[in-house]
Amino acid sequence: MERSISLFEKDIKGEKVSIPNGYSAVIGKEKRMHLLEKRIDQIQAPDKKTYEAARERLRNQARPAGSLGALEEVGARLAGIFRTLDVHLHEKVVVTCAGDHGICAEGVSLFPSEVTPQMVYNFVDGGASINVLARHAGARVRVADIGVNWDFEPDLPIFHKKVRKGTGNFAVEPAMTREEARQSIEAGIEIVEALLEDGPVHILGTGDMGIGNTSPSTAIIAVYSGLPIPQLTGRGAGVDDEGLRRKIVAVEKGLKRHRPDPKDPLGVLSKVGGLEIGALAGLVIGAAAYGLPVVCDGFIATAGAMLACELAPQAKSYLFASHNSVEVGHGFMLKYLGLRPLLDLEFRLGEGTGAALAMELIDAATRILADIKTFEEVAIQDAQSGR
Amino acid sequence: MERSISLFEKDIKGEKVSIPNGYSAVIGKEKRMHLLEKRIDQIQAPDKKTYEAARERLRNQARPAGSLGALEEVGARLAGIFRTLDVHLHEKVVVTCAGDHGICAEGVSLFPSEVTPQMVYNFVDGGASINVLARHAGARVRVADIGVNWDFEPDLPIFHKKVRKGTGNFAVEPAMTREEARQSIEAGIEIVEALLEDGPVHILGTGDMGIGNTSPSTAIIAVYSGLPIPQLTGRGAGVDDEGLRRKIVAVEKGLKRHRPDPKDPLGVLSKVGGLEIGALAGLVIGAAAYGLPVVCDGFIATAGAMLACELAPQAKSYLFASHNSVEVGHGFMLKYLGLRPLLDLEFRLGEGTGAALAMELIDAATRILADIKTFEEVAIQDAQSGR
Repeated sequence: MERSISLFEKDIKGEKVSIPNGYSAVIGKEKRMHLLEKRIDQIQAPDKKTYEAARERLRNQARPAGSLGALEEVGARLAGIFRTLDVHLHEKVVVTCAGDHGICAEGVSLFPSEVTPQMVYNFVDGGASINVLARHAGARVRVADIGVNWDFEPDLPIFHKKVRKGTGNFAVEPAMTREEARQSIEAGIEIVEALLEDGPVHILGTGDMGIGNTSPSTAIIAVYSGLPIPQLTGRGAGVDDEGLRRKIVAVEKGLKRHRPDPKDPLGVLSKVGGLEIGALAGLVIGAAAYGLPVVCDGFIATAGAMLACELAPQAKSYLFASHNSVEVGHGFMLKYLGLRPLLDLEFRLGEGTGAALAMELIDAATRILADIKTFEEVAIQDAQSGR
Repeated sequence: MERSISLFEKDIKGEKVSIPNGYSAVIGKEKRMHLLEKRIDQIQAPDKKTYEAARERLRNQARPAGSLGALEEVGARLAGIFRTLDVHLHEKVVVTCAGDHGICAEGVSLFPSEVTPQMVYNFVDGGASINVLARHAGARVRVADIGVNWDFEPDLPIFHKKVRKGTGNFAVEPAMTREEARQSIEAGIEIVEALLEDGPVHILGTGDMGIGNTSPSTAIIAVYSGLPIPQLTGRGAGVDDEGLRRKIVAVEKGLKRHRPDPKDPLGVLSKVGGLEIGALAGLVIGAAAYGLPVVCDGFIATAGAMLACELAPQAKSYLFASHNSVEVGHGFMLKYLGLRPLLDLEFRLGEGTGAALAMELIDAATRILADIKTFEEVAIQDAQSGR
């Protein structure tokens, strides 16, 4: 965790630096304990003038006004974020955060916890779903261990950000301490900083891996929606009816025990978890702090995004929803956030797969805005062609 | 029209030839008048065994079964079409068919008919919406004049397939003769053959340009759904309430006058039009005849696809729906065809824009099938890594 920050300090010596998106920020000799608050303070609003100029250009293009639907707003939002009408998202990165979950002891998941580290290795080897979909989208995949119950080799090319080896079983105990919750969020922020140190990043996707992690995500949306658990609980990777009942009971038990206060997102995270969900929140806050658009994946990544927006409502200006998951609670999360998903393909996988696929549409939105000619531009071209 | 066919004959001398997808077909000394029926007869069913093998591979991949939703079925269907689990859609082509519409005399459209040829020039110049979205998808755009009311320069790089200069006003007369309807469909088939002559094509997208063409499309879905016109009529490029009322009246008048028989698709086309809709039907039949997947765009392209499937129900195995248009009748068409659109982004543009964007998802589906490792492949790799 210290590694990336210290490198960052060495590079920039606590001075005001330019970062890839044209924003600048003072980054440097800060106390680690205050990283979260500093990055929240650092978030600037996207540029409204450029956003308006983008909407105007879209209206003037040689096609019926509004005819490219939801991608028009995506393009205009990106223009506001990057302060230009000609956005190029060359460097795309999906960060897949992994963690284990004590709640698995309640029999809530189809797969055993051992699958979490196995999948981390599968990501590193490049043959998993997220590798395939990220490759298709022209995105890199970076994997982060936030809380896997496994000792990875130190030279394994992942972000080694383990806060602890899995959460506590939140049905009977807090998932983690408040300090661990903060650490998991700051791990996400530090990952963004480490990525930016390595070179330009133009868009970030968030993804998850963690057997059992639909249970804490269900608990989180329950806290914020106030809806009954059975209405919010899905089958995750595919538990049967009996497993679904156990899951509902476990989440209800945990919420009854801990009574998380929605106004205290750090408390919610520490009480119901999970560690990778904290990092997923941190990725959103980190991206927003550095003026980067961030695309959240499905149910678990959006749980993280929700906590991020509770901690830093202004982060939402940088947040894009990739898809609508089969997992029933996801729709309630998107509604709560007021985000429109770009895809609805019955995905229920996680890993960042929806985020990767949506990046292709988001990229298309940048080309729509910049490259489709306006009526005026067409007229000029026609005059030049002698038509 | 004769050009491509005669070249084709010269190349293959009426012999049995291999075509890019591994199918073979006898193409050659055929009488032009029978092209449509010959190509319908030529359509073969995709390979069921390869489809089943694909479904099996998808089930065995190291992820929850079914977790990549609708793209799994797309991948499996493509496997059946190409008879391999490793499909590569390198050569993508969107064909945008243009035509004018006599029904514009009824005041049904926001834009004047002059916009149709202007947009054809815009397509050729590369600055239109379809150019931008096709470029993003890695697809070529080819434009075809099937019935534009304009004399294009003979050296303009488009398919010159004009059947007549716009349709008749179907509110008061037939849109075209039965022979012209056949010619417009055969123009679409000939375009597929001309493309295949030029080199490999792995997937075809269909798109339209034609001021006024939501009116004939509305008439077509009315014929096949039997639903009342007001329920099927949308605002096209954006007519106001008064224009919408005129459009409903015009379509109702046309259908009352001609009483098209749904069992006679050629009759439906000749009575309500349009010329580019015929070609869009021909593209689907041509693609199916040569074993090519074909992605239909929105309301107008799907009207063509409906007529194609009425003429040749077996063509549907090659047909993919790209998106769900804002135009209200489109949902009824997709329902009638039993096709699931991949995107729902509130597009209402045409040109092939939805088809181009969906090609990226369809391409992703091929990678999902081929490249995501199965549990067995992961185990082999782990053993090799000494884990």
